[in-house]
Amino acid sequence: MILYGYWRSTSSYRVRIALALKGLAYEAREVDLRHDAQSDPAYLRINPQGRVPLLIDGDVTIGQSLAIIEYLDEVYPAPALLPANPSARARVRQAAQIIACDIQPHGNLAVLRRLTSQFGADQAGTDAWAAHWIALGFAALEAMATATGPYLFGAEVTLADVCLVPQIYNARRFGVDLSPFGLLVAADAALRQLDAFDAARPEAQPQTS
Amino acid sequence: MILYGYWRSTSSYRVRIALALKGLAYEAREVDLRHDAQSDPAYLRINPQGRVPLLIDGDVTIGQSLAIIEYLDEVYPAPALLPANPSARARVRQAAQIIACDIQPHGNLAVLRRLTSQFGADQAGTDAWAAHWIALGFAALEAMATATGPYLFGAEVTLADVCLVPQIYNARRFGVDLSPFGLLVAADAALRQLDAFDAARPEAQPQTS
Repeated sequence: MILYGYWRSTSSYRVRIALALKGLAYEAREVDLRHDAQSDPAYLRINPQGRVPLLIDGDVTIGQSLAIIEYLDEVYPAPALLPANPSARARVRQAAQIIACDIQPHGNLAVLRRLTSQFGADQAGTDAWAAHWIALGFAALEAMATATGPYLFGAEVTLADVCLVPQIYNARRFGVDLSPFGLLVAADAALRQLDAFDAARPEAQPQTS
Repeated sequence: MILYGYWRSTSSYRVRIALALKGLAYEAREVDLRHDAQSDPAYLRINPQGRVPLLIDGDVTIGQSLAIIEYLDEVYPAPALLPANPSARARVRQAAQIIACDIQPHGNLAVLRRLTSQFGADQAGTDAWAAHWIALGFAALEAMATATGPYLFGAEVTLADVCLVPQIYNARRFGVDLSPFGLLVAADAALRQLDAFDAARPEAQPQTS
């Protein structure tokens, strides 16, 4: 398997966690978003959308982090990242999508750059923009989380946890006040104790700089 | 079943299509986003996130349109909205997520209002913002679509088609030039011939105004 990603991209980070939880070996290929490597013609031939992450598993090529993780969960089912019960699966997917659809898109580097080029936003403005959507989404997640922990929905690690840890990492980068989100902060701390989450963190990647 | 939605919300529109394709009856409850009905305390008790759509199926309550549709597909499997093969499922989910994660969040009413309140964007500015992300995402989808049609990935209607038609509807509202996206426009036209897509369209909803 080959994973094209970027060490600080939260959606790449999600896929690294899922691969590590399942004990799957892969070759990591770094796409440096700060230097627009995602727009290199060579990369666009592999992924016409010019985004990360992208997973290649034999003759299967998949973009979009949640699609990649659902694929991994179907083809390499242990440990499962979704519960067996449809309503419990729905709750986990809902939480994952609050992060993937309502938070992360607004903190994407391309989006922040566009705020600057189109509306003249400065660094403080783009930071406040990203922080606004993080706080709104985290409030929704905090209302959904299981009060007893240790993880978002109890004792099993799910797709929602796989999305939570990278987004908390990102929230800290943007200086978001996490004090209203006690359950999320506690789940994040418990998850980061796990080897798979530790191996997947941005600073543990070889290309970090 | 009860579906809380808004006639013009593209994510509500996706769920209406899925329900209609599966022949599931439901009570539609309109949440008028233009008048901030999603922030009414009575609605927030039902959905703390204050978003639409929200599906109630017996004692199961689900937010986030893709989580709702995957739940429907698991509990009411005919007709299936995802193929059986994991790599084909991944391709369909990838396409759906290009719309749900890379396009729709940037055209959300709350996001456009925030561009105005935070950066002083005028109507032309917010229209251009939404159109920019639609064009980028549609270019990626066009590169993925099956050239022979009639739908995005061949003869079976999938979750990707369920997301495509509302997004094309929305693109037309924003005046996006669709001429570079011939496969998407053709798939949209073919899909709108189907009764389920016709019944789900915004102008066919009772509360339209």
